[in-house]
Amino acid sequence: MDLLIKNGMILTMNAGLEVIEKGAVRVRDGIIISVGKDDMEPSQEVPTREIDAHGGIIMPGLINSHTHAAMTLFRGLADDLPLMEWLNDHIFPAEAKITADMVYRGTLLACAEMLLSGTTCFCDMYLFEEEVAKAASKAGMRAVVGEVLYDFPSPCYGPLDKGFEYVKTMMEKWKAHPLITVAVEPHATYTCAPELLTRAADMARTRQVPLVIHVAETRNEVKLIKEKYGKTPVNFLADLGILGPNVVACHSVHLTPEERAVYRKFDVKVAHCPESNMKLASGVAPVPEFLSEGICVALGTDGCASNNDLDLFQEMDSAAKLHKVFSMNPEAVDAASAVKMATINGARALGLDESVGSLEPGKKADIIVVDTRSPHMVPMYNPYSQLVYAAKGSDVMLSIVDGKVLMENQALTTLDVDQVMDDVLAMAKKIAAGDGG
Amino acid sequence: MDLLIKNGMILTMNAGLEVIEKGAVRVRDGIIISVGKDDMEPSQEVPTREIDAHGGIIMPGLINSHTHAAMTLFRGLADDLPLMEWLNDHIFPAEAKITADMVYRGTLLACAEMLLSGTTCFCDMYLFEEEVAKAASKAGMRAVVGEVLYDFPSPCYGPLDKGFEYVKTMMEKWKAHPLITVAVEPHATYTCAPELLTRAADMARTRQVPLVIHVAETRNEVKLIKEKYGKTPVNFLADLGILGPNVVACHSVHLTPEERAVYRKFDVKVAHCPESNMKLASGVAPVPEFLSEGICVALGTDGCASNNDLDLFQEMDSAAKLHKVFSMNPEAVDAASAVKMATINGARALGLDESVGSLEPGKKADIIVVDTRSPHMVPMYNPYSQLVYAAKGSDVMLSIVDGKVLMENQALTTLDVDQVMDDVLAMAKKIAAGDGG
Repeated sequence: MDLLIKNGMILTMNAGLEVIEKGAVRVRDGIIISVGKDDMEPSQEVPTREIDAHGGIIMPGLINSHTHAAMTLFRGLADDLPLMEWLNDHIFPAEAKITADMVYRGTLLACAEMLLSGTTCFCDMYLFEEEVAKAASKAGMRAVVGEVLYDFPSPCYGPLDKGFEYVKTMMEKWKAHPLITVAVEPHATYTCAPELLTRAADMARTRQVPLVIHVAETRNEVKLIKEKYGKTPVNFLADLGILGPNVVACHSVHLTPEERAVYRKFDVKVAHCPESNMKLASGVAPVPEFLSEGICVALGTDGCASNNDLDLFQEMDSAAKLHKVFSMNPEAVDAASAVKMATINGARALGLDESVGSLEPGKKADIIVVDTRSPHMVPMYNPYSQLVYAAKGSDVMLSIVDGKVLMENQALTTLDVDQVMDDVLAMAKKIAAGDGG
Repeated sequence: MDLLIKNGMILTMNAGLEVIEKGAVRVRDGIIISVGKDDMEPSQEVPTREIDAHGGIIMPGLINSHTHAAMTLFRGLADDLPLMEWLNDHIFPAEAKITADMVYRGTLLACAEMLLSGTTCFCDMYLFEEEVAKAASKAGMRAVVGEVLYDFPSPCYGPLDKGFEYVKTMMEKWKAHPLITVAVEPHATYTCAPELLTRAADMARTRQVPLVIHVAETRNEVKLIKEKYGKTPVNFLADLGILGPNVVACHSVHLTPEERAVYRKFDVKVAHCPESNMKLASGVAPVPEFLSEGICVALGTDGCASNNDLDLFQEMDSAAKLHKVFSMNPEAVDAASAVKMATINGARALGLDESVGSLEPGKKADIIVVDTRSPHMVPMYNPYSQLVYAAKGSDVMLSIVDGKVLMENQALTTLDVDQVMDDVLAMAKKIAAGDGG
């Protein structure tokens, strides 16, 4: 297998943020073997397949560092509501009736949406996560998956002990899979007792996988934890000895400067979800501060019930703009920083930066090409700016994972998109009627 | 001429926000003659052309209530900079070299982008506005155009007196045109002396056209005007006797409750540009308050140097989300309100609500159809929510103005899109080199 993508502007997203005009990327056996100028490409080797980027942007596939993929099932089911009404009257009742099959079909739809908008890797937290792994594998996407763990019985695994068994079984099953990493994912400090959290953290540390958890998403959460434990969620987690470089702290909206220092000390990674935080009125995470303090910030869409899409292009745009107006500083979160969040920082957050997140020889070939030949992409003075402030997910003309073309010219190669949509539409009818899927 | 669009969910955006499932719209001679259920369509009349919406959303064309269309030329030329550096070192020098031809070509590109993303009408303020009228007319778009007036000499008309002559000449030239309205557009309180403002307001009132002006966009502007006149921009305009129902106050970010009451008293219309205000860190307009106080808020993208696109779908999304997080209220600016801003409120703001902004018999046929058959648009529980929180501009499959199909399946009927892009790309090379267009 040998693939050559040529005639594009390469954003390598390597340490020096090198940009190569009129560049070419060569892939063999799923691995990037060269990244350079078109005319430096050794002509004696004829690739099995050659793809012309037509002057578009060749860049690493985007990484969605926090989502609940199967919540595509609930896209727009309930919006513009107070958080508790949204959760208690709409989302929780719908989720109580969820089945393995619904999660599988909902995740396939999410994979279709993500591949069509240039996302090649995602980190998921949900119920029936075995189905998420199956769906991602079917789609050919890279994924970090983790069954959500909490104190109360789960519709998937039942009591908590079975939850840890479920995760262990998944780890064994998927350990040799080239695309799937099984993480440990306790829900949050307000839904998980200290025993659960320490057990989960031990498991993640022993297995050397990410520990993914919601942290300080809302003011109410911070208040609850302070009342319960006399300290904030971050300090509570730090005192439990749980924080470390493998921790992906989703949201991290309400943090003090001292808590940011704790993140920095333990090299905690942040999965920033600006659109979900905006839509649910959760607040604005201190991202400019995280960045200036050297904390790794990745980008996530969160689930489709609170966004309501999985489009990281729009998420980059929202991140860059939100922090400018919130800090009243037009220099906050510049375009290149936003692209880093959605690529190399995402890889770092998920412990995958040795294999993906940038275009460098030796890395896995997770690559996208963005078409720049349409009115809203013309002219182009700066590729980062164009990607963040002008591009749409629909501009992605090629999505490649592990060297395999999964989407080309907005058509998917691994999924029957009509069938995937029809399956979810049938389930949505029952969900709307309150009958589960 | 007779056109039937059928098999869609109609969002009428009429006073009752009526939604018609499995609906059809019939158009004759550019006018909507019926809006109703598919099966109510009288079968004896065979239309000249029948379009199947394939279950998509049929709705009024979107209205961009504030832009500088030709600034597509400067899309991404300079981003992530302090306002004064952005203006003085990049935008003003580029604009100093602008020519009529550049404005014409840049506006054609803007029209292409707008039609491709469902915008059928825009309100423009720029230099060489005659060219904007020509470009809009060439594209077949509805437009309110107005030469920007200010105290210093203009690259277009020279001294101010010539500016008023220029506007008058345009008004005479375009008065019988079915798509073009010529407005009076003084730039702002900090660039226009009281004499200019009152003369402009008199002209707009006499001619019964909109008076379009930037108001209270930045804190610095408010400070400047307070220092100069001892009052805020809104009170300064009110005391000059300029405010009235024909005034489109663009941005209106920094207003006190008392100034909102002034808007309400004079029925001033607001052109809200959330993404530009975010990107330039100008601030957050009090839109939830405007809406609850009964002030008409329309939606605009502003120009491509500060957004950097003309996509009203993304603008609706940003508006709905920004105000939620800024007010920490998830009920602020709900999806239907955002769609109203981009349709019927836009029409009201521009004095066009008797002819466009909703789908009602007797109105002009400015109609779009949004495709709902793609992964990110599935499932659909609520069409407003879907349009605001999930749809992209690229989902628009049909854009019709005055009964004429201007875009179908992402192909334009009135513009040679490759030529339009090539023309701007050639100009952009010179702009990047600092040589004008």
